[in-house]
Amino acid sequence: MPRTPSVPPSPAGAAGPVRPRPDAHLALRPAPAAIDAGFWHDRRETNARTSLPQGPGLLEAAGNLHNLRLAAGSTEGTFQGAYPFVDTDVYKWLEAAAWQLAQAPDDALAADVDRIIALVAAAQQPDGYLNTWFQLVKDGERYQDLRWGHELYCAGHLIQAAVAHHRATGHPDLLDVAVRFADHIDAVFGPPGSGRPLDGIDGHPEIETALAELYRETGERRYLDLAAYFVDRHGHGLLGHDAYCQDRVPLREATTVEGHAVRQLYLLAAATDLATETGESRLRAATERLWHAMTTTKTHLTGGLGAHHDQEDFGDPYELPNERAYCETCAAIACVQWSWRMALLTGEARYGDLIERTLYNGFLAGVSLDGERWLYVNPLQVRDGHTDPGGDQSARRTRWFRCACCPPNVMRLLASLEHYLTSTDDDGLQIHQYVTGTYTGDGITISARTDYPWNGTIALTVEDAPEDRSRTLSLRIPHWCREFRVRCGDDSYDRTDAPVTDGWLRLRRVWAPGDQVVLELALDPRLTAADPRVDAVRGCVAIERGPLVYCLEQADHPGGGLDDIVLDPTRPLAVKQRPDQLGGITTVVAAGRRRRIPDADWWPYTPYSPLNAPGSSSTGTTGTAAAAESPGEGEPLELTAVPYYAWANREDGSMRVWLPTS
Amino acid sequence: MPRTPSVPPSPAGAAGPVRPRPDAHLALRPAPAAIDAGFWHDRRETNARTSLPQGPGLLEAAGNLHNLRLAAGSTEGTFQGAYPFVDTDVYKWLEAAAWQLAQAPDDALAADVDRIIALVAAAQQPDGYLNTWFQLVKDGERYQDLRWGHELYCAGHLIQAAVAHHRATGHPDLLDVAVRFADHIDAVFGPPGSGRPLDGIDGHPEIETALAELYRETGERRYLDLAAYFVDRHGHGLLGHDAYCQDRVPLREATTVEGHAVRQLYLLAAATDLATETGESRLRAATERLWHAMTTTKTHLTGGLGAHHDQEDFGDPYELPNERAYCETCAAIACVQWSWRMALLTGEARYGDLIERTLYNGFLAGVSLDGERWLYVNPLQVRDGHTDPGGDQSARRTRWFRCACCPPNVMRLLASLEHYLTSTDDDGLQIHQYVTGTYTGDGITISARTDYPWNGTIALTVEDAPEDRSRTLSLRIPHWCREFRVRCGDDSYDRTDAPVTDGWLRLRRVWAPGDQVVLELALDPRLTAADPRVDAVRGCVAIERGPLVYCLEQADHPGGGLDDIVLDPTRPLAVKQRPDQLGGITTVVAAGRRRRIPDADWWPYTPYSPLNAPGSSSTGTTGTAAAAESPGEGEPLELTAVPYYAWANREDGSMRVWLPTS
Repeated sequence: MPRTPSVPPSPAGAAGPVRPRPDAHLALRPAPAAIDAGFWHDRRETNARTSLPQGPGLLEAAGNLHNLRLAAGSTEGTFQGAYPFVDTDVYKWLEAAAWQLAQAPDDALAADVDRIIALVAAAQQPDGYLNTWFQLVKDGERYQDLRWGHELYCAGHLIQAAVAHHRATGHPDLLDVAVRFADHIDAVFGPPGSGRPLDGIDGHPEIETALAELYRETGERRYLDLAAYFVDRHGHGLLGHDAYCQDRVPLREATTVEGHAVRQLYLLAAATDLATETGESRLRAATERLWHAMTTTKTHLTGGLGAHHDQEDFGDPYELPNERAYCETCAAIACVQWSWRMALLTGEARYGDLIERTLYNGFLAGVSLDGERWLYVNPLQVRDGHTDPGGDQSARRTRWFRCACCPPNVMRLLASLEHYLTSTDDDGLQIHQYVTGTYTGDGITISARTDYPWNGTIALTVEDAPEDRSRTLSLRIPHWCREFRVRCGDDSYDRTDAPVTDGWLRLRRVWAPGDQVVLELALDPRLTAADPRVDAVRGCVAIERGPLVYCLEQADHPGGGLDDIVLDPTRPLAVKQRPDQLGGITTVVAAGRRRRIPDADWWPYTPYSPLNAPGSSSTGTTGTAAAAESPGEGEPLELTAVPYYAWANREDGSMRVWLPTS
Repeated sequence: MPRTPSVPPSPAGAAGPVRPRPDAHLALRPAPAAIDAGFWHDRRETNARTSLPQGPGLLEAAGNLHNLRLAAGSTEGTFQGAYPFVDTDVYKWLEAAAWQLAQAPDDALAADVDRIIALVAAAQQPDGYLNTWFQLVKDGERYQDLRWGHELYCAGHLIQAAVAHHRATGHPDLLDVAVRFADHIDAVFGPPGSGRPLDGIDGHPEIETALAELYRETGERRYLDLAAYFVDRHGHGLLGHDAYCQDRVPLREATTVEGHAVRQLYLLAAATDLATETGESRLRAATERLWHAMTTTKTHLTGGLGAHHDQEDFGDPYELPNERAYCETCAAIACVQWSWRMALLTGEARYGDLIERTLYNGFLAGVSLDGERWLYVNPLQVRDGHTDPGGDQSARRTRWFRCACCPPNVMRLLASLEHYLTSTDDDGLQIHQYVTGTYTGDGITISARTDYPWNGTIALTVEDAPEDRSRTLSLRIPHWCREFRVRCGDDSYDRTDAPVTDGWLRLRRVWAPGDQVVLELALDPRLTAADPRVDAVRGCVAIERGPLVYCLEQADHPGGGLDDIVLDPTRPLAVKQRPDQLGGITTVVAAGRRRRIPDADWWPYTPYSPLNAPGSSSTGTTGTAAAAESPGEGEPLELTAVPYYAWANREDGSMRVWLPTS
């Protein structure tokens, strides 16, 4: 049902991604927030002080900037890099820097940005085309290899950077470059009968959501139509019906997520942008259906997405391996970007649940605590004595990658994170994510103080509110939360009597400055089990606390590895504050043991017998581990779990999220 | 300790692979056998009547023969095929055909062989070089890309085919081609200081074991030295210390198998050949160490090898996934070839145990019952609703492959299978594998009748024996066998009193024609569990009977899939003869149920609670499945298991080897 929102567009100062047009068809409208202290503030400081400033040097060393100069004719040499999409590393860094500049002036960063924008502009060809690989390596053979060439993918990231830069600074220089390229693409691509020379799509979606954002920024409807054309042409065989490239089936007919995870998620973000701007119900239904299929059957506990190393793609339903989980950092980022669009489109709290889970786990693990090293792949297990002869880098942080898509992608999400926190509608303000800072919307400003995720108390104070009418303050009660209390003036509620509907705690008042709301989310550590169809974790539990997934690391368990460890789920979990460890964390301590595993002669498979299976002494029926192991046997051991996001920041070693219970 | 065998070389008629020289240092010497009827006879008939005769047509259709003509200048056109090693499909087919001709004259097959050998000979260059890819596509740029070029790998398969053809027919035509190529390689490759222009190794081992066989066939020591040079130069960085290509570490220092599975196994076959021919104890120790590391930690229940799709390589120890098991058919073949060499070198029975397991399961699954369709990848699980958008072909039999290494490899093993069955030493005859047929060695001939693997009775009759002295008949008691009886004349033994040492039942007698030995192996179906470090199968059992691993297929379980099935391990297993099914099989029937799994809202992970875990009603402590499932709940179901080798011969559907017990 089309809906004309009565709330105004976001204030001019709030430069961030995803700015629906005033006439968009959506339930919620993004609203400004600021992050002033606490968990995410610290991460953003590291991003601003370490990761972002190191970017230009890394892009210089890897040859990305050299390639731009080469394309501009201002230097000599040969193309550096192994992929046709290396330009996007520059564009994503520019986007990240732009969001950063929107928050705080930074002369050095601004100078880097201007310098690099000049390189980009100089490399652009007179007709608007820009791709250093094709200009330098492929002799300008444009659009001959849409499946693997990534030309429109690169254009998409250029456009997103330009939109960010324009929103953040008001300067038109990069936007002019992007518009020239977009107009060029618009002149080249179109459906049969349109008079355009080419009917085609890019093997890696990205141009679609970028064009939607360019429409939002410029108001030029052609860009939205072009985005719609590209989205619609997926699934019709232009790329051989290849699932990897999102061409097996039209999106509106798809029943599950499939193919290359990042490609799928960027395409779905674009589809959501289109549903938002056009109000098309069939497209919206597809996005809701596919999000549900993804979360119910193809999402790791960490929010990680993509089961296969082989093609960086989704597997079958419930195929969620641990050590070979691919869970590309970029897929986590794409999931946040898409889920936020879904939250705005539908108004539902569960999208914020997945965003929270992804941010604190599958996404944040992608960058080291010091902001200098990265994970491309985010497994849920690293075995004792793991070796990486294939060089898949799944268990070792790396300074930069030959395919360096993830690091600047992390930077742009961290630099724009405050834009994924809060929204407004006709009736008030919604808080999707909890930080120390301020939330502003529908005329009211609320400040928040919290030590979340270490502490479950969030103290909200109304700083400013016109007393013209009542408004609803909506607080997301996280999906993981079993107990909470909320005090609002003289009222107090808990899980049994709080006005919660579909994950939103709705507090309706005529708010006045000084009003206080204190939400206390119980943060007892907990054990989590999986649907029994997730074969990879049968007989295992995971430790969680609040939004954090925990893992064991070898560094905390001297005297052995982790592959022979068993957790006793009948013993209570304990919590320890460790301000000294891993940048300051809370650990969870569990009781367990080390198995005694007799040496196999030469074959690790043995006759099953209920009599010697674990747990069999009392039931005689359950248990399935090696027949030769006696129940309960083994050395007792205190298991210390650390947050998953902090793993791989000490010496190399094994790691496990899922722990056997017998 | 070097050892000069007193037994003579194998009789001239026994044309098969692996013919150690008379002065080789080995415990056992291969001996002739014939397969006259029964299980493997039927498979070999299909191989001889369907698979082999179809080869030339398939090689013509795929362009392999065209490429040879093109290289010879006898036709026009362009190179067909996507890989530099397509010539090996021809060579492996020739090898298979040669072994087949050694068994029975076949004019049509012989004509095909002669015709194709003529094509090969005509394509060879004057200096002995032969590789159609490099001659036609790479403008003769020889040996510039040893890592990926496969030139020596192709040479290796040519040599193996030539050795087979010469042994089988006595004709020198293909051997002449191979010798010219080998001499060319010998003139080009050598260590620094040798005066040869190139110091290098091939990224895909195969030349090494082929040269050892060429030495055996020709007596020319240079070929063994060249094989030793290639083996020795692996692991020294000639290929960038790449584990995939077996260049990370010298073989004599390696502690586990790693990298591309087939590459690793072919190299180890060569190392075993060298240890056999030279008596080098350090090399022998490495092969024994690596075989043990492989079987204890990196072998699937089916004998399948190679955990990763990504690089067709070995994973970490105990990383043995089910649906993403790679288990390439060629790796199973390579494992049989290597393990047989180890059996001869060491005299130990366990190598025959692994050969048996591999033949009946991981290998045989690679070819369809009708001999016309193939599996490249042999997973242990296919999920309900499995899709294969990435085209990895892991669950669907295919008529031929773009990379068609496996089909002719299956053909050559089946056509030479009788050469992996029996051996002799100073003291008698060893039977490693049981078939209906004859075993000959150390002067005696024994006939055997058996319905193995369906029936465990093997009836042996001495057909011929000089009564000059006593000899030991050694019968391998399979590793899986828990109970057996053996009658030998008036003697009768069972497990408790039989003269079994290290897997060999040793019967020492002065044998006379008409003597009878009847071995009865108990074939009760059994449940098997894995070492608890094999995370992928925690909480599961597999059904086995005799040497056969069983699986469930969706075709036998209408009304649902397999992913919600639970096996009750407390209920007995039953056996049913099904001569009508899948070419005639024995099925195993187990009791189980279908779970009732409540719909997840949108997240498949739920709080673990001992109170609602399976098995908890009695113990309160065990069980880990989804919290919302009640113990024992679900529709009772009779589970019908079929031999794994026979899977994927009916309609597409799900399949499972490992079955949850709760």
